[in-house]
Amino acid sequence: MHVIVVYDTAAERNPRILRTCRKYLHHVQRSVFEGQVSEAQLRRFQAEVESLLDLSYDNVIVYTFPPGTTPIRLTWGAAEPAPTDIL
Amino acid sequence: MHVIVVYDTAAERNPRILRTCRKYLHHVQRSVFEGQVSEAQLRRFQAEVESLLDLSYDNVIVYTFPPGTTPIRLTWGAAEPAPTDIL
Repeated sequence: MHVIVVYDTAAERNPRILRTCRKYLHHVQRSVFEGQVSEAQLRRFQAEVESLLDLSYDNVIVYTFPPGTTPIRLTWGAAEPAPTDIL
Repeated sequence: MHVIVVYDTAAERNPRILRTCRKYLHHVQRSVFEGQVSEAQLRRFQAEVESLLDLSYDNVIVYTFPPGTTPIRLTWGAAEPAPTDIL
């Protein structure tokens, strides 16, 4: 299924969250990832991310879509940087 | 139509981008907004946002969905703060 993940986590946890997101999804903006995962992959991804979070502070929103539904992505402003340029 | 907007803009432009997003959408995470807009509202919103952007730096991603399609939103970690708590 198609998923979009956006996170707002404390700076000291960002690098590990980023690495975990990169294992499953494509990096499309500083703290935004997107891609296709199976139900099983999403469960593993959730377990890995939740093991890194401070539940009193960090917030991760995950949008999922019914099979066959993919959002249309528009970009306003600067072109999206190449993945390696995103910190 | 349902839209999700995520932005990565220079700090000095964030307050005006934030105010513009709030005119059209609900604030769901630090730089993430979501809601229902018409085609005409989306065009006005885009014009307002683009007038604020530095096109060499700022990036705004807008996800749109076919009519009748709404993503499922999951939250991992901390509950989403009340809108007034989001800077």
